[in-house]
Amino acid sequence: MVEEKENIQFELTDELIEQVERLVSETKDKELKALLNEYHYADVAEILDELSLEDSVYVIKLLDSETTSDILTELDEDTREKVLENLSAKEIAEEIEELDTDDAADIIAELSEERQAEVISQIEDNDHRDEITELLAYDEDTAGSLMAKELVKVYETWTVAGCLRRIRGQAKDVTRVHSIYVVNKKEKLIGRLSLKDLIVAKSEQKIADISKDTVDWVYVHDDVEDVARVMAKYDLEAIPVVDKNQTLLGRITIDDIVDVLKEEADKDYQMAAGITGDVEADDSILELTRARLPWLFLGLLGGVGAFLIMEGFEEAFKGEAFVLFFFTPLIAAMAGNVGVQSSAIIVQGLANDDVRGSVNSRLIKEMLLAALNGTILALFLFLFVWATKGSFITALAISVSLIAVIIVAGLIGTFVPLFLDKRGIDPAIATGPFITTSNDIFGILIYFWIARLILGI
Amino acid sequence: MVEEKENIQFELTDELIEQVERLVSETKDKELKALLNEYHYADVAEILDELSLEDSVYVIKLLDSETTSDILTELDEDTREKVLENLSAKEIAEEIEELDTDDAADIIAELSEERQAEVISQIEDNDHRDEITELLAYDEDTAGSLMAKELVKVYETWTVAGCLRRIRGQAKDVTRVHSIYVVNKKEKLIGRLSLKDLIVAKSEQKIADISKDTVDWVYVHDDVEDVARVMAKYDLEAIPVVDKNQTLLGRITIDDIVDVLKEEADKDYQMAAGITGDVEADDSILELTRARLPWLFLGLLGGVGAFLIMEGFEEAFKGEAFVLFFFTPLIAAMAGNVGVQSSAIIVQGLANDDVRGSVNSRLIKEMLLAALNGTILALFLFLFVWATKGSFITALAISVSLIAVIIVAGLIGTFVPLFLDKRGIDPAIATGPFITTSNDIFGILIYFWIARLILGI
Repeated sequence: MVEEKENIQFELTDELIEQVERLVSETKDKELKALLNEYHYADVAEILDELSLEDSVYVIKLLDSETTSDILTELDEDTREKVLENLSAKEIAEEIEELDTDDAADIIAELSEERQAEVISQIEDNDHRDEITELLAYDEDTAGSLMAKELVKVYETWTVAGCLRRIRGQAKDVTRVHSIYVVNKKEKLIGRLSLKDLIVAKSEQKIADISKDTVDWVYVHDDVEDVARVMAKYDLEAIPVVDKNQTLLGRITIDDIVDVLKEEADKDYQMAAGITGDVEADDSILELTRARLPWLFLGLLGGVGAFLIMEGFEEAFKGEAFVLFFFTPLIAAMAGNVGVQSSAIIVQGLANDDVRGSVNSRLIKEMLLAALNGTILALFLFLFVWATKGSFITALAISVSLIAVIIVAGLIGTFVPLFLDKRGIDPAIATGPFITTSNDIFGILIYFWIARLILGI
Repeated sequence: MVEEKENIQFELTDELIEQVERLVSETKDKELKALLNEYHYADVAEILDELSLEDSVYVIKLLDSETTSDILTELDEDTREKVLENLSAKEIAEEIEELDTDDAADIIAELSEERQAEVISQIEDNDHRDEITELLAYDEDTAGSLMAKELVKVYETWTVAGCLRRIRGQAKDVTRVHSIYVVNKKEKLIGRLSLKDLIVAKSEQKIADISKDTVDWVYVHDDVEDVARVMAKYDLEAIPVVDKNQTLLGRITIDDIVDVLKEEADKDYQMAAGITGDVEADDSILELTRARLPWLFLGLLGGVGAFLIMEGFEEAFKGEAFVLFFFTPLIAAMAGNVGVQSSAIIVQGLANDDVRGSVNSRLIKEMLLAALNGTILALFLFLFVWATKGSFITALAISVSLIAVIIVAGLIGTFVPLFLDKRGIDPAIATGPFITTSNDIFGILIYFWIARLILGI
């Protein structure tokens, strides 16, 4: 029976955590097991993330390895690292035996090299061990690092009936079948078919006759982000991975891609906010400082630069024109905001692969856009300054420079990410403090130059 | 045979576009068909996005509706709108007939109400029409708006053999089977099973005996973002949708969730950069202005506020203390950067549902973090000002205020998104221009206050 539930989402309450802690401290193992078995392993992982290390390890050792192996994959990286330190190589190997090769390799990769060798040597199933060792050899951001060896493979010469008989064996190890991959005698990927095709077909038909020969695939050394883009674009739920000779090596499933997409999005969002190194709200103050301080320091240098510029213009703007200094935060803010806007659009366009046309046409478009926005904003500023300060020429100087500042800021914001991308550098670093800081300095400098020109000083 | 390809990604070249344009203008229909049939429909959509409206409509009318219906779903919204305007209600209805209910409803929803009625009345398949009409009734951000009516459903009383026979019929309409949903006589969802389970089972077994009774589901009125979070967390590839009585209504597949996650990430990224309304680099200057100008205007108001504050302190800081004004861009930049950093971490934590603990503990943590970062940065600034300006007390005033500004900025950045979230407002609007602008003003105000206190003016 399906149980009733108020909400689709599991809610981690303080009561639940306290209940688990109480059961652990009173070593009521049976009750604890019964309680935790009610929850999905991803939810149990969330509970463990909140427990003390001692309690977490207690729970992991209490539950059977079929459940705990899944829980391990869902734990916070920090928690997992500490829990694994408290397990023997033998115990870790037992967890690993329960996991698909991709998850197994991910966990082993987090261990120290020495520990990796120990754990691998303790894995009893030879095939599983060899497959995991193979996966560990692939570079982190390649398709190989994401693929699992578990898949259902049939030879083109088989019949439907024989195929159904054979895949009954293979499918047991494969959590979700998705596609069945068709290979020739040399293990070369030549097509695919779905379980549905197999069920609908007549039992004496040959696989070669019912399989589809249009099969997408990726190379084992392809970049993970490219794989994600392809799978998202073509709505694929699994994609086979091949080597240079088209030999079928493994497959990547969409759930891993969902994780990749989320991580990418989180990373870009943080980078735009001036945070590096994939931190979370719950990380330690020291970790957060390491992620945040460098960018703040960059901002500090920018501020010092602005100070030096203003000091340099101190003599020029004595007397009435002095009010110009009071608009520097406005100028800096506008330069920063426009720069961030235009760079964000380019960064996103590059990520979604829909920035087409030449750099020049981009720059011209951004210039027109910035000129339009700048003129509207400058008009307001002009009226405000004229009304409050009563000086037409000062108001004109400030507002005309604002337009120039906004145009330059827009051009810098557009050019920098395009330039970085051409150079093979992740353009996402261009949005955020980097562009804000450089635009602050350029903005104030341009502002003073043009104002001086207009005021004839 | 699988054709060789250099790169996993389809590359839209100018040559290809020109080739298509040439074939259109020379009305070489056969060649054009042959050329476009080589590409995936998602790739053809990319080509059409680059063509003139006239050429796109020509291609759409040329290809058969089985292909064009898929192409339509992949077109840019702008292009699709214009193409549909050039098709008759009858022609659109023909495309719709080829699509799954969810894609069909999405396309119809984009039409004007009058046109919707026309198109719906032209759909020949009664069931398809009723299902689409049902889907159109659900609110945009609910599970109902994302689900498809196509799914494979079996009754608990069926046998495996009978079931296989029956689902052969159902499965034809369902692109990917994923799970088979088990219902009782009242259409209530009571379990699920996979095609694999069915193949592995003996043909005389009852469905009730082999089905799994732990099935996740969502309610039809659940929020789309919650559905996405659940599916990502539990690695689901499809989830059934039920009503209050647990009646099975439809299912949501992971490919739609991937799109939701991408859109969410893009939206949050843009909001953080001060852009509203989901624009792209290729949108018109007017559309981009509409998305960017309001936030720039907010920044302008902030700058005017900063000007008013500085003017108010003009008298107080005459003479030597005048240098304080030259550090206002630095103060504003630091306040803005710290505010954006802390709000980004909270916004992301809220989105990933891992912000736990009380608001107070968050604020205390952020205060400590800001104090640590602030002190390090202030020390540098102190040494710089002391060395260049030679005044110990001025250097002290500026650097101590910097610490205060950073702490307050961190607290505002932490508090605002938490507050918005409690009020049910999307906290993502708190990052970006909103927090930058308010922190600019507060920062400069606090800076002057504290500096005046220390300088004893």
